[in-house]
Amino acid sequence: MMQKTKKIVTFGEVMMRLSPPGHAKFSQVTSLDIDYGGGEANVAIALAYMGMKACHVTRLPDNLIGRSATQYLRHHWIDTDYILYGDSRMGLYFLEKGAVHRSSEVVYEREDSAFSKIHPEMIKWEEVLQGADWFHWTGITPAVSIGAAKSCLKAIQVANDLGIMVSGDIHSRKSLWKYGLSKQEIIPELVAGSNIVIASTYDMYDIFNIGQPDADFATSAKALQKKFPLVQKIIDKDREVISASHNRIKGKMWNGKEFLTTPFYDVTHIVDRVGTGDAYAAGLIFGLANQKDDKEALNFAAATCALKHTVEGDANMVSQEDVEVLVRGSGLGEIKR
Amino acid sequence: MMQKTKKIVTFGEVMMRLSPPGHAKFSQVTSLDIDYGGGEANVAIALAYMGMKACHVTRLPDNLIGRSATQYLRHHWIDTDYILYGDSRMGLYFLEKGAVHRSSEVVYEREDSAFSKIHPEMIKWEEVLQGADWFHWTGITPAVSIGAAKSCLKAIQVANDLGIMVSGDIHSRKSLWKYGLSKQEIIPELVAGSNIVIASTYDMYDIFNIGQPDADFATSAKALQKKFPLVQKIIDKDREVISASHNRIKGKMWNGKEFLTTPFYDVTHIVDRVGTGDAYAAGLIFGLANQKDDKEALNFAAATCALKHTVEGDANMVSQEDVEVLVRGSGLGEIKR
Amino acid sequence: MMQKTKKIVTFGEVMMRLSPPGHAKFSQVTSLDIDYGGGEANVAIALAYMGMKACHVTRLPDNLIGRSATQYLRHHWIDTDYILYGDSRMGLYFLEKGAVHRSSEVVYEREDSAFSKIHPEMIKWEEVLQGADWFHWTGITPAVSIGAAKSCLKAIQVANDLGIMVSGDIHSRKSLWKYGLSKQEIIPELVAGSNIVIASTYDMYDIFNIGQPDADFATSAKALQKKFPLVQKIIDKDREVISASHNRIKGKMWNGKEFLTTPFYDVTHIVDRVGTGDAYAAGLIFGLANQKDDKEALNFAAATCALKHTVEGDANMVSQEDVEVLVRGSGLGEIKR
Amino acid sequence: MMQKTKKIVTFGEVMMRLSPPGHAKFSQVTSLDIDYGGGEANVAIALAYMGMKACHVTRLPDNLIGRSATQYLRHHWIDTDYILYGDSRMGLYFLEKGAVHRSSEVVYEREDSAFSKIHPEMIKWEEVLQGADWFHWTGITPAVSIGAAKSCLKAIQVANDLGIMVSGDIHSRKSLWKYGLSKQEIIPELVAGSNIVIASTYDMYDIFNIGQPDADFATSAKALQKKFPLVQKIIDKDREVISASHNRIKGKMWNGKEFLTTPFYDVTHIVDRVGTGDAYAAGLIFGLANQKDDKEALNFAAATCALKHTVEGDANMVSQEDVEVLVRGSGLGEIKR
Amino acid sequence: MMQKTKKIVTFGEVMMRLSPPGHAKFSQVTSLDIDYGGGEANVAIALAYMGMKACHVTRLPDNLIGRSATQYLRHHWIDTDYILYGDSRMGLYFLEKGAVHRSSEVVYEREDSAFSKIHPEMIKWEEVLQGADWFHWTGITPAVSIGAAKSCLKAIQVANDLGIMVSGDIHSRKSLWKYGLSKQEIIPELVAGSNIVIASTYDMYDIFNIGQPDADFATSAKALQKKFPLVQKIIDKDREVISASHNRIKGKMWNGKEFLTTPFYDVTHIVDRVGTGDAYAAGLIFGLANQKDDKEALNFAAATCALKHTVEGDANMVSQEDVEVLVRGSGLGEIKR
Amino acid sequence: MMQKTKKIVTFGEVMMRLSPPGHAKFSQVTSLDIDYGGGEANVAIALAYMGMKACHVTRLPDNLIGRSATQYLRHHWIDTDYILYGDSRMGLYFLEKGAVHRSSEVVYEREDSAFSKIHPEMIKWEEVLQGADWFHWTGITPAVSIGAAKSCLKAIQVANDLGIMVSGDIHSRKSLWKYGLSKQEIIPELVAGSNIVIASTYDMYDIFNIGQPDADFATSAKALQKKFPLVQKIIDKDREVISASHNRIKGKMWNGKEFLTTPFYDVTHIVDRVGTGDAYAAGLIFGLANQKDDKEALNFAAATCALKHTVEGDANMVSQEDVEVLVRGSGLGEIKR
Repeated sequence: MMQKTKKIVTFGEVMMRLSPPGHAKFSQVTSLDIDYGGGEANVAIALAYMGMKACHVTRLPDNLIGRSATQYLRHHWIDTDYILYGDSRMGLYFLEKGAVHRSSEVVYEREDSAFSKIHPEMIKWEEVLQGADWFHWTGITPAVSIGAAKSCLKAIQVANDLGIMVSGDIHSRKSLWKYGLSKQEIIPELVAGSNIVIASTYDMYDIFNIGQPDADFATSAKALQKKFPLVQKIIDKDREVISASHNRIKGKMWNGKEFLTTPFYDVTHIVDRVGTGDAYAAGLIFGLANQKDDKEALNFAAATCALKHTVEGDANMVSQEDVEVLVRGSGLGEIKR
Repeated sequence: MMQKTKKIVTFGEVMMRLSPPGHAKFSQVTSLDIDYGGGEANVAIALAYMGMKACHVTRLPDNLIGRSATQYLRHHWIDTDYILYGDSRMGLYFLEKGAVHRSSEVVYEREDSAFSKIHPEMIKWEEVLQGADWFHWTGITPAVSIGAAKSCLKAIQVANDLGIMVSGDIHSRKSLWKYGLSKQEIIPELVAGSNIVIASTYDMYDIFNIGQPDADFATSAKALQKKFPLVQKIIDKDREVISASHNRIKGKMWNGKEFLTTPFYDVTHIVDRVGTGDAYAAGLIFGLANQKDDKEALNFAAATCALKHTVEGDANMVSQEDVEVLVRGSGLGEIKR
Repeated sequence: MMQKTKKIVTFGEVMMRLSPPGHAKFSQVTSLDIDYGGGEANVAIALAYMGMKACHVTRLPDNLIGRSATQYLRHHWIDTDYILYGDSRMGLYFLEKGAVHRSSEVVYEREDSAFSKIHPEMIKWEEVLQGADWFHWTGITPAVSIGAAKSCLKAIQVANDLGIMVSGDIHSRKSLWKYGLSKQEIIPELVAGSNIVIASTYDMYDIFNIGQPDADFATSAKALQKKFPLVQKIIDKDREVISASHNRIKGKMWNGKEFLTTPFYDVTHIVDRVGTGDAYAAGLIFGLANQKDDKEALNFAAATCALKHTVEGDANMVSQEDVEVLVRGSGLGEIKR
Repeated sequence: MMQKTKKIVTFGEVMMRLSPPGHAKFSQVTSLDIDYGGGEANVAIALAYMGMKACHVTRLPDNLIGRSATQYLRHHWIDTDYILYGDSRMGLYFLEKGAVHRSSEVVYEREDSAFSKIHPEMIKWEEVLQGADWFHWTGITPAVSIGAAKSCLKAIQVANDLGIMVSGDIHSRKSLWKYGLSKQEIIPELVAGSNIVIASTYDMYDIFNIGQPDADFATSAKALQKKFPLVQKIIDKDREVISASHNRIKGKMWNGKEFLTTPFYDVTHIVDRVGTGDAYAAGLIFGLANQKDDKEALNFAAATCALKHTVEGDANMVSQEDVEVLVRGSGLGEIKR
Repeated sequence: MMQKTKKIVTFGEVMMRLSPPGHAKFSQVTSLDIDYGGGEANVAIALAYMGMKACHVTRLPDNLIGRSATQYLRHHWIDTDYILYGDSRMGLYFLEKGAVHRSSEVVYEREDSAFSKIHPEMIKWEEVLQGADWFHWTGITPAVSIGAAKSCLKAIQVANDLGIMVSGDIHSRKSLWKYGLSKQEIIPELVAGSNIVIASTYDMYDIFNIGQPDADFATSAKALQKKFPLVQKIIDKDREVISASHNRIKGKMWNGKEFLTTPFYDVTHIVDRVGTGDAYAAGLIFGLANQKDDKEALNFAAATCALKHTVEGDANMVSQEDVEVLVRGSGLGEIKR
Repeated sequence: MMQKTKKIVTFGEVMMRLSPPGHAKFSQVTSLDIDYGGGEANVAIALAYMGMKACHVTRLPDNLIGRSATQYLRHHWIDTDYILYGDSRMGLYFLEKGAVHRSSEVVYEREDSAFSKIHPEMIKWEEVLQGADWFHWTGITPAVSIGAAKSCLKAIQVANDLGIMVSGDIHSRKSLWKYGLSKQEIIPELVAGSNIVIASTYDMYDIFNIGQPDADFATSAKALQKKFPLVQKIIDKDREVISASHNRIKGKMWNGKEFLTTPFYDVTHIVDRVGTGDAYAAGLIFGLANQKDDKEALNFAAATCALKHTVEGDANMVSQEDVEVLVRGSGLGEIKR
């Protein structure tokens, strides 16, 4: 259907995720399920399953745990040729999955990870980005360390130079940003080099001092675009949380001309809530990179996000066709034989 | 409650079913759950759990896998004395269970199975059917091979001679019928010897050239009955697919005199969708074989079908009483102590 | 927040619970999940997770299974210093978890358990209850054996002497009471020493001959209170059973002055239905023991009960704060990071 | 190879066996593996896997656990048509598997089981034993209850009348015999009707007052045979216990004419030690029932016993050919493709 | 240590392997462990873990099972860029792991696999082999189908043209060779283009009519080398099978000048016996490709083979250093911290 | 048997241990088994299982992972009342279990753990040690951080003041000692306050500059005792490593008067190698604390160590009687019923 397989490069930390099976609590189990994930790698994996080429750049400990992380990415179709190895530890997080009125709970152990020790000189972005069509970053990466922030900025600059599309998902996480600089100091420079930005009204208020926390999304988005001329589209989603087992998802976009929304996607039996925002970003990138119009791309993003809720682990693992079926609303839920 | 325990004989392929635990995808797991099933054996098992005697006839590879299949059937109360063993392989299928908007997916590996090599002379139907009250076949069996089709026809003829009730579930599966003959050539002969037929409006149009794909069920059923005088009742069900996790089931029957339906059974948290049609057939056979009137039998069928959605594996494993409770709508969902 | 950590003592049998994983049936599995539970120990564990000190008194077989039961209680924060060991066996029960229209099923094997051989002289209640703020019993204990009944009565008397609050959950279970005396003969004496009583309208009719099976709760409760002057509050809950996967819970209380109720808590995806009544009792005790007013305490009880439906095993394992969040209705279902 | 498939009938309790996976201890696990077994059923299963027909008679609780036990026997090829169901509970035992210097440990919970409530009038032995070639009992059955002892005696008498071979495995277990009569009072009557007896020198001393605890086996056996003229052969085995992981097995027999022994079978990596004596009995019966000479049969018995140490669960599950290969000492340990 | 990372290309079928956990039998389990393997892919994976680049060429079904196989190879470091997808099914095999006197047992279901449908025109060997240092084949591939045989021959010819080392492992498997041609007709042509050949004395007698089945290895090897001038070294190993749990391994080589052997490697506690011959081939190739002398390379091969016995699955997964440690005999069995 | 149950207090880090099931490698699994352990807590648990009172002091993160660690200790009978909670992370380690020639491998992630942030003022040792009979430390604790080292020294001093026996296991681990001070600077001060010291000849050379790395143990021990007058006995063990699956253990002691040794304990099928040194220390403490003479105590230590090799996890979980049986060499490896 498409002329040429598009290639994305993503950059960010990969953590080992350890979670009790099913809905069990940590206090009940004697084994933990392992996955690996991170906001950016999740986007890469999701896009790889939809048929794009995807290369993830990160830094891992040079031991059997770090290599297992790489093996996980390879398993899920990622090009891992540019992964760096070195001293320090594996970032990891513990996840206890909730249900109905019981929230899921996450405990991070990611400080001083091998990724946090990264420095801009470690990566030859000109080489890494050669042949790529898209570069994606999230606001988690610059929050980890000054080295990570600078490496991310460097990647964006090289992508800009090479004419590669850049998308950024603001994704601000309070518990990070401990190394001295604030998101207000770092994020704007990254957004300045980005073409597609995923940000909430609150993010725009909080980081860029645009509008109010509860302002109208389109209004804030217009102001953001004014401030950062490279930015073509600003995207967010509404999540209606009925319970930990039932969410509703709706996409929204300011594309510089009009404010677009999708219908709500009703996820009535959530299997895994983590990484659904990353799936949203992946769906959006897939749509935009593959010549869908904005409305189609937004719908594709929301449908991808909805599907991720039914996949265990951090990353979405559904095909382009699975998403198209949902977007079309046909054949849904029947057994495919 | 009943005077005499009724005995059913079923005939068809038994496949090994391999599926990732829970809702996991094949790309995520290192082990697979094993079940064994097949449209006809599923009916036999369901009836055995409801208290009938059930004998299943099939052909399996003469090795430890074939014997494991027999052991599975024995475990689930089936009389396996007439199972044949011989060359060739185990038919198998892979099942990935979906959720909400994500469809389940099935991959078959059943070509050239030991069952497909079956020939009519291999089975002494007169002996096998001695003492039976009911014989059941489905449209999958004749689709497997000419030998299977002829064996099935032979069984029906012997059953007719012995005055044994015959039911057939059309159950047409596109991916089969690869051996040269078409369902239009074979199925009518099988239906001609059947007393109870489960068929959709589309099946009747497609196979017997009756009515239109979207015709009124009762009208088509009347026409079918006209064509096949032995046929006493034609049955189908409506399945409303809200999602892969939520279906609604409603039975319908033309019994030669009136068109009957049941209320919808709302299955809000599906555990396993596979084999629910076979459970429907089993419920119907149980009702009709045990002197329920048509309305009761149809209701029993729909309730049995609904319950199967909550049982893992191919076959239903609930008692007659479990179904009766659902039909009565009392005590439902309470803990039985 | 609270001045002093309150301490509860509970008394009753602890059984090993054996259940197939997930929704599987006994006829399908080759391993069983182990938990340990009992109406009173469940209350103790739930309160321990909410921050209270909890000591459970029971009698277990003096072998590796009995010790494993104690280890389970210790694991879940219980003070096990007063557990007795001796001859006879472990009580156990088998649980098959249903879904939607399929009920859960329980098989008990608890006769002649080590607990049933208990005698009042075995326990020095004056020592056990020293420093406690609350004693809780249920109607299951006196149903097990005359020794258990007398031990329970002794505990209540000592608690009364020491000025310790006493709560009792009538919880009548038909399959017990096999040792010669009836609940009508025993329960009233226990209630006479209790300050807080959980009882249904039917219980009040059946055991105390108050009102009718379907009488108005508040009216019966008033009559009960009249009969037993120590009783300050009578509590019950309404459970609307939509299916085995979906229940709705609502608390109700007669506190001597007014009839209080809570809104319905809608548990749409039940993980484990067992022990939810014990969680209700625990929530109630927590609220009342920690200076909540009656309405708050009742709401806290209903919310605790609702949360238990999402926790596997017999006992609730959520924190006070988890319940408060649900009571407040804020942040619910979001991931806690 | 053999003219006619021989049929055995066995009689005895079937218990649920619950054991931690692998070498784990009870204090470490959250799930238990399920098997079902009992000295006599183990013999039946072992013989069924070697190609004989095998029918087991027992009494089980009339609930889902009792039926699961029957399903287990059916799974492993047993004819379960004469199993009785009724009140009371499932006998069960807990097994913790040791290794090297750590012994395995067993805890029984079998008192008042459904089997212990059996009475001779419940079983029509004339019907059950019709067509059988062999009846096997062990010393565990009469140790359970007076009803079990009398039922066993009745079976032996009917077998004698029908000219069916009878074998008995003395298998004395101290922890039983609690119902008033002693083994010295009961066992001799059972042995009097038996043709093949498995007994140790100590058993012969202890039960029949023959010889000394450490007497020569052949001498004691001769004396036993003198006392019980129906007894044709007395068999025992030597087990050299190097550790819980390494045993050596050697068969010995007094056949009325000569004292036979086998070489030692060296089991260097034990997988499951339980039921190895039952496998020995099964191998012996198979050999004698199928026209092997005494030396061959004894060798077959010892090899069957050795192989059982490599099979998890209570019962041996290897084919006649697997044993023959070991007896011949060819191809052993190679992969069979 | 080495100047340049060497690259190997392997060619052959990849099968899904399904085996009961641990030492369980098929008749005992409800789930199966999944691995993927094949003689040639096993060599590639083993070499990848030792640090070489490894590319495997095969043909897989174009469905989720075929893709899972590719994902498995990617996980284990294999370059899968040249894998073909198309019609037909996944080859698979069932493995039951034995212990001590109980042999492991394998059941193949590989007929008509997607790989068997391969044709020489499907693969551009010039492109695939570009930049490779080594090509490896086994006698299983030509045994599968004429297309597979011709594709293998083509690969060898192209490798010869490009000056790439070629190794072949005769590995003759009786159950294959069903498509019309015999190994005597095909294998010689493949050996003619090979530089390194793994063959037993029996293989040389059977396929090339050299010597006798029990001839002296070196004598036969000399004769083989005479016949096929490209062949530089002929290698085999001695396996002393003490039991299924204990084997002893010793390498032997005729290198054109001298007959070399290694000491025995004593594998006293076998974890997984499958694929140990492939590990031997991998160790040999690693040694020879990385400038070890023949004696060192042979020792490295035998040590690699020994280590594979301790790794679950088809393929070896140990590092070069792990092997070196064993070859040196230092630090062995200590915990590496 | 003993007059009064003795109480031990231990102090040190508790880590979460994550390991693939069985002998699998990290690159093969999707779940990890959880245990918790640490040299000192292992000693406490082992002693608790042998019947002593055991209190462990440590510092854990104040989150659900830290609390799970405490729950693990409580489960295994430890008094956890003096555990501290606070900022920072859980120390953890990854363990891949080897077999035969394949070594086990450990990766630590313990830097900056909550324990490493401990300070002497955080613990009131006078209160903690009240009523204790024994205090045990290892050389790992002072290696973690200056705060841990000082806290350990403080504990020893208080123990000395209270007349409590002190034992120390030198246990030097190279990968630690990163905070500035060296073991040569810290350990001597700790040993100066200890009565029982476990140290190798190499440790004595390396840390105290006594003798040579390969000196005679008794000679070095005498010199050590001379230097540290409080030291009464110096103990070590010989471990003969035949492979990762087979070790031999022998105890040795200089008790100030004579040099004692035990026979070798031959552990032929190792289940878990980790923590065996801690079990040795526990056995020694048990013996000495419970009035065994030195020879008996040493034998008890070596037997405890041998048994630990058969128990999964970090800590020994066998009873005093299990050890006595091994010491006596009777009944070993038989099933305990």
